[in-house]
Amino acid sequence: MTTTAVLLIDCPDRKGLVAGIANFLVAEYDANVLNADQHQDAALGLFFMRVEFQSEKANCDGPRFHAAFAPLAASMNLNWTVTFEKPLRVAIFVSHYLHCLADLLHRHQTGELPSSLVLIVSNHESARALAEFYRIPFHLIPVTKENKQKVEQEHLDLLAAKEIDLVVLARYMQILSPRFVEAYPLKIINVHHSFLPAFTGAKPYHAAFARGVKLIGATSHYVTAELDEGPIIEQDVTRVSQNDQLPDLIQKGRDLERLVLSRAVRWHLAHRILSYANKTVIFC
Amino acid sequence: MTTTAVLLIDCPDRKGLVAGIANFLVAEYDANVLNADQHQDAALGLFFMRVEFQSEKANCDGPRFHAAFAPLAASMNLNWTVTFEKPLRVAIFVSHYLHCLADLLHRHQTGELPSSLVLIVSNHESARALAEFYRIPFHLIPVTKENKQKVEQEHLDLLAAKEIDLVVLARYMQILSPRFVEAYPLKIINVHHSFLPAFTGAKPYHAAFARGVKLIGATSHYVTAELDEGPIIEQDVTRVSQNDQLPDLIQKGRDLERLVLSRAVRWHLAHRILSYANKTVIFC
Amino acid sequence: MTTTAVLLIDCPDRKGLVAGIANFLVAEYDANVLNADQHQDAALGLFFMRVEFQSEKANCDGPRFHAAFAPLAASMNLNWTVTFEKPLRVAIFVSHYLHCLADLLHRHQTGELPSSLVLIVSNHESARALAEFYRIPFHLIPVTKENKQKVEQEHLDLLAAKEIDLVVLARYMQILSPRFVEAYPLKIINVHHSFLPAFTGAKPYHAAFARGVKLIGATSHYVTAELDEGPIIEQDVTRVSQNDQLPDLIQKGRDLERLVLSRAVRWHLAHRILSYANKTVIFC
Amino acid sequence: MTTTAVLLIDCPDRKGLVAGIANFLVAEYDANVLNADQHQDAALGLFFMRVEFQSEKANCDGPRFHAAFAPLAASMNLNWTVTFEKPLRVAIFVSHYLHCLADLLHRHQTGELPSSLVLIVSNHESARALAEFYRIPFHLIPVTKENKQKVEQEHLDLLAAKEIDLVVLARYMQILSPRFVEAYPLKIINVHHSFLPAFTGAKPYHAAFARGVKLIGATSHYVTAELDEGPIIEQDVTRVSQNDQLPDLIQKGRDLERLVLSRAVRWHLAHRILSYANKTVIFC
Repeated sequence: MTTTAVLLIDCPDRKGLVAGIANFLVAEYDANVLNADQHQDAALGLFFMRVEFQSEKANCDGPRFHAAFAPLAASMNLNWTVTFEKPLRVAIFVSHYLHCLADLLHRHQTGELPSSLVLIVSNHESARALAEFYRIPFHLIPVTKENKQKVEQEHLDLLAAKEIDLVVLARYMQILSPRFVEAYPLKIINVHHSFLPAFTGAKPYHAAFARGVKLIGATSHYVTAELDEGPIIEQDVTRVSQNDQLPDLIQKGRDLERLVLSRAVRWHLAHRILSYANKTVIFC
Repeated sequence: MTTTAVLLIDCPDRKGLVAGIANFLVAEYDANVLNADQHQDAALGLFFMRVEFQSEKANCDGPRFHAAFAPLAASMNLNWTVTFEKPLRVAIFVSHYLHCLADLLHRHQTGELPSSLVLIVSNHESARALAEFYRIPFHLIPVTKENKQKVEQEHLDLLAAKEIDLVVLARYMQILSPRFVEAYPLKIINVHHSFLPAFTGAKPYHAAFARGVKLIGATSHYVTAELDEGPIIEQDVTRVSQNDQLPDLIQKGRDLERLVLSRAVRWHLAHRILSYANKTVIFC
Repeated sequence: MTTTAVLLIDCPDRKGLVAGIANFLVAEYDANVLNADQHQDAALGLFFMRVEFQSEKANCDGPRFHAAFAPLAASMNLNWTVTFEKPLRVAIFVSHYLHCLADLLHRHQTGELPSSLVLIVSNHESARALAEFYRIPFHLIPVTKENKQKVEQEHLDLLAAKEIDLVVLARYMQILSPRFVEAYPLKIINVHHSFLPAFTGAKPYHAAFARGVKLIGATSHYVTAELDEGPIIEQDVTRVSQNDQLPDLIQKGRDLERLVLSRAVRWHLAHRILSYANKTVIFC
Repeated sequence: MTTTAVLLIDCPDRKGLVAGIANFLVAEYDANVLNADQHQDAALGLFFMRVEFQSEKANCDGPRFHAAFAPLAASMNLNWTVTFEKPLRVAIFVSHYLHCLADLLHRHQTGELPSSLVLIVSNHESARALAEFYRIPFHLIPVTKENKQKVEQEHLDLLAAKEIDLVVLARYMQILSPRFVEAYPLKIINVHHSFLPAFTGAKPYHAAFARGVKLIGATSHYVTAELDEGPIIEQDVTRVSQNDQLPDLIQKGRDLERLVLSRAVRWHLAHRILSYANKTVIFC
């Protein structure tokens, strides 16, 4: 019986990396490489690799692989992670716009987003019905100016207790504190309702409408301490014209938000994203 | 024998505009309406209309139409222009990147840009060969820090002498002075090599590469006194990935620049653009 | 108090149509024109018009408008319909793929598809949960080879009893009989999971995969007696590569199907579609 | 001093391919791998690889590499080719539509298509001026019903004499014989002015217009014995509406033809295309 694993590597580029890694997997670990993708950033002298491999069940657990791979990895100066078919544990944060949530829930149900969808957090009641329909535990945690810090601790405790690997902000309208963000580095995905870096901040559709753009966009990105400045994962646009008033922009934008957020989540769940220099490498 | 004309109107919205204008054209002017497009901006209470009509040759000159239409237009408070099959007279300004120029010249030759292409102005020698191949008069006017004002006067004199209706900046790398811009209001089209308002200013591809965007864009717009802030005419984007290094972005961007600039010029030549509130209405 | 109405017209093109119609609306009917769009097919000599207007409540019912407009319409040889703010009554047919249904239901709930969603018909149980969540009556009507004719009669009786204006086939996997189709001319919208006319018939994703296309598409269209040959309403595509296996094509295709079907339904509900010569004119 | 080479491999998939090949390049051939891309077709059990590597000048010629790599390649059952920085020799065939030719010539001049552009063949005079402007030898070879076979021999002799590696059909309106096609397997690139497999054959824009599609496309593909059935390299589409008459479709289509043809040529010149099962794998 075999198991599938994904090995992600980033490191300074040097001769022999591919040969060394492939050799280890095949000769020492007796793995069957299903997919291997590399990327080099020549300017920065960096190397990135994603390997999807199958191996005998017995071989496939974290400790065994770590023990076997660590010496080579150390000698080659690799940053690396490996994942053995363990679906990530996901929390979705949402406020009162439900289109991204409804989309993620439907995709999850149809198997498009292989993961454990553990909980939904909201500062509003409105998401409860959807959560219950899809049978995902729903946590109503209202936020006020006064209770912000307390709420944050509640969030962090909840995520820790449930061993969450990925936080998806599905139009969650509260700003996360630096402390929260640092607790989940490259593990929080947000959707921004504009084509970043155009129209950062609040009310991007209003700004786009005022500027008279001919395309509107949406962006999914990892959340970092600086608002709207994290590594971009995916972007998409659609055409608008003078016939599109502000409500039309918002409606068209919703379709884009759903698409770019769901793609980002799918790629993250399949370990297809590496991030460096505030950019992303997408292996797909 | 008939002639084709285009009537462009913008005015405060009020009841009876379409009926009044259509009635005039049909009943009084005996015209055959080929196309009529309206647009309303409900928020600002504005009305925009483009009518393409045919009429007996005898009817079709500026003075006759003006005399006939002026009373109605005054009573309805219309801003309006009419054009009777007179191709616009165009000047292209270019520096050393020739892809937009080559594209415009080829399109002009194949009849895609009906106009009188009167002259090409450049601060570099490099465009001369193309200009000569397509038999368009070429004016080399080098620009230095010292001669800027003198050059500008030379430009303005040249444009005036040649009765230029439209100035196309086909990657012309000099900034025009407010005085120049004011002399040609909504008559100068520029291509900016990014998806405005992202990456205004110089070196947008460098900025896009650094930010790690997943789509790059280009924008054609009318030039106003404020750099990169004029009414957007057209935008388009294309997908990029980690495999696209800076030179790839620049190469992909060239294709976008050609497309958005040529569309803007084509629409302007066919009187399909109305501008208000720093936006454009495109009738097409 | 005012009401909004949409007037749709198609007829042989002739001089004075716009003036005549606009004049009637403004002068005789005292209406306020919100939007007016025309289209001419010069080759076929046809004229199409959509007018959205507001009028005093008292004026706004079918009989009054008919009585007032009929003489002019007859004299101008117009085909026309008018609708006074009466939301269409919609039935959705679905089989076991639920992504389009889920999308339509969510959009309907958020107000994006203004209509009376009266019932959902399916030959499978699987859609029941969604129907119940959104509180839309669900009719399970299984289809077998033997009961096809009986089922069809049941469908037609149900639609007639509920006074359905529009039937949306949201991946309904049964072929409708000519009799059914003729009962709802230009009132049945289907989504075909390919870029028509490429890959008509069954299993288009399999065919697209085998042909090695670089883009896959989806098409929404009115249903006519000939399968996959009705007037196309909307199409969209997305890029695929060698990394996309058949399941990836199907997954990417689902996103397209949702988009093109929902756009078609939205436009139909707002009376933005006119059809002639097996094509559509979209006013938007 | 170093040289860059591209190694292309396709073979039945098996364990250890990447490790074996990478090991050879690094350990035995002392190469520096710049880029390596793999693709597996799991259904067909096939493996594809493209490696771009640098090596000491002394190492880099065909014979040396062949001698060194052949034993390993034989033991692994590889189909393979290697190219050492030798620009391909290209011939362009064109008829009277010149937009693709003009585009290719401009791109070649700006360095976007690194290759030896050896000759242009046409059955019309119209391309001569462009050929001369860009200083590419021009061969006028008129084709009639009677001289078809003689002309074909003339073409083949010319291509052989000039050692042509790639034939680009830039809207060449003559059908090539099977004999010609077999002489240049996967070495003839054509642009078809529709989104294949829709609208094969002649006059695709007329067919697209009649069918009322909402998007038009263009396709570049390798030419095989069966017309319009060869492996697709690239496709793109653009939106059309009822406002686009047949000439507009043709004009919009020209932009697509230019783009998809130039991309196909660029990828072929950089050895980024592998073909199997009548599909293409694009490494980029």
